[in-house]
Amino acid sequence: MASSSSSSYGIEQLQKECYYEWMSLQAKHIVDLKEALMRQRSNAYNHHKLEELVGKIVNDFQSYAKRRSELTDKSCSSYFAPSWNSSLENGLLWMGGCRPSSFIDENIDDGHDGDSSMSDLTATQLEKINDLHVKVIREEDKLTKKYANFQEDVADMPIAVTAFWRDSVEADVAVEDALDKHEECMGVLMAEADKVRVETLKRIVEVLTPVQAAEFLLSGKRLHMSLHEWGRAREDRGYGCVHVRMQQQG
Amino acid sequence: MASSSSSSYGIEQLQKECYYEWMSLQAKHIVDLKEALMRQRSNAYNHHKLEELVGKIVNDFQSYAKRRSELTDKSCSSYFAPSWNSSLENGLLWMGGCRPSSFIDENIDDGHDGDSSMSDLTATQLEKINDLHVKVIREEDKLTKKYANFQEDVADMPIAVTAFWRDSVEADVAVEDALDKHEECMGVLMAEADKVRVETLKRIVEVLTPVQAAEFLLSGKRLHMSLHEWGRAREDRGYGCVHVRMQQQG
Repeated sequence: MASSSSSSYGIEQLQKECYYEWMSLQAKHIVDLKEALMRQRSNAYNHHKLEELVGKIVNDFQSYAKRRSELTDKSCSSYFAPSWNSSLENGLLWMGGCRPSSFIDENIDDGHDGDSSMSDLTATQLEKINDLHVKVIREEDKLTKKYANFQEDVADMPIAVTAFWRDSVEADVAVEDALDKHEECMGVLMAEADKVRVETLKRIVEVLTPVQAAEFLLSGKRLHMSLHEWGRAREDRGYGCVHVRMQQQG
Repeated sequence: MASSSSSSYGIEQLQKECYYEWMSLQAKHIVDLKEALMRQRSNAYNHHKLEELVGKIVNDFQSYAKRRSELTDKSCSSYFAPSWNSSLENGLLWMGGCRPSSFIDENIDDGHDGDSSMSDLTATQLEKINDLHVKVIREEDKLTKKYANFQEDVADMPIAVTAFWRDSVEADVAVEDALDKHEECMGVLMAEADKVRVETLKRIVEVLTPVQAAEFLLSGKRLHMSLHEWGRAREDRGYGCVHVRMQQQG
């Protein structure tokens, strides 16, 4: 049996690899979607093929979530502020990933301004999307509440008492068990959040036509990839606020 | 004028230093509180002196929050998942710090079990603490909701449209402005959260006797310091879950 230390290191490595595989797959999705939408516009592509592509991409997301969930089961803390994310992305994180409700905000125009990034939705579609939005926010709130309770539980655990009565900060068996249990609970919660993410994506795509769905996925993936790049770039050259302020004052 | 890049790097460094100064001050608080409580028990210390110490420690926390807030104003993203925290701590983070409601859970026994870590509270004290708990949770929920809205706003921003219409992921001025504005909003939110943290601490201490307040502060500080140590230790030797499971299976 490998030592627990090297195995655990292996797991964080696997989580990182899993993430970068997903990012590279998303880069491919972007190319595929662009190509398919271009062909569609020149009538060289039929709706059925576009539908297939959209279905494949949604399945890829589900597989990614499944793989992540397997890795989460072993060690989930790192997913709540991954080292491979920029600070910008970590500040946007909800339960180790994006907010399912943001799928709707980011891409689906509510018809109130002219900057639609997607082919126009019908009134029926808009109604369905709005209903979904409300439902998803409700599910998010439920999980956010659970998360808050888990966080409070840590403070409530035998830890507090242990920490109070002993001088040493060395963790004993009771503390380690409590922390393990906490990590397991967080893992279960993240799996639930992943389920909401996947389900929301599926339900959105069901409401849309294949062209709209392809546009929606393309926009979302571009935003995701862009945020990663921008976050890193901002860190590399120092943080944005300061930069801008100094220019204004300079 | 210094280059924006070196100044920004300096700010993240300052944030880290500010944190470690606070941790080291807390280590001193622990020693002071222990000593004061020991003297108190041997009747060699009067209530007034204990009260002074408690007041000083609460003021130190307020100064720390103020200093953090000054640094947040310049760049707040890093506070939402600080690199100086362990994953365990980052998973417990709420608005760049601890949950104010956890001040109450962690230390104040509700009288339902025998593991009280603090000298017994009177019925009146318990009632006041419970009222405060409810109020604090309500304030937390309000800020959590604001945070969710800011997160959604990012997805809603010109970014999405920019990302959709352009092939390049390079950020343009509109994107940079939007991200700067986002970071500013998050900074304001964190300052509000810090205010709730400081106010909650003050209100708890007001309800308690000097001895109870000293015990409460000691317990909280020990938990805070312990979580930092334990989180690091768990990371150094690999994550807990895996370790435990492999032992069970091995």
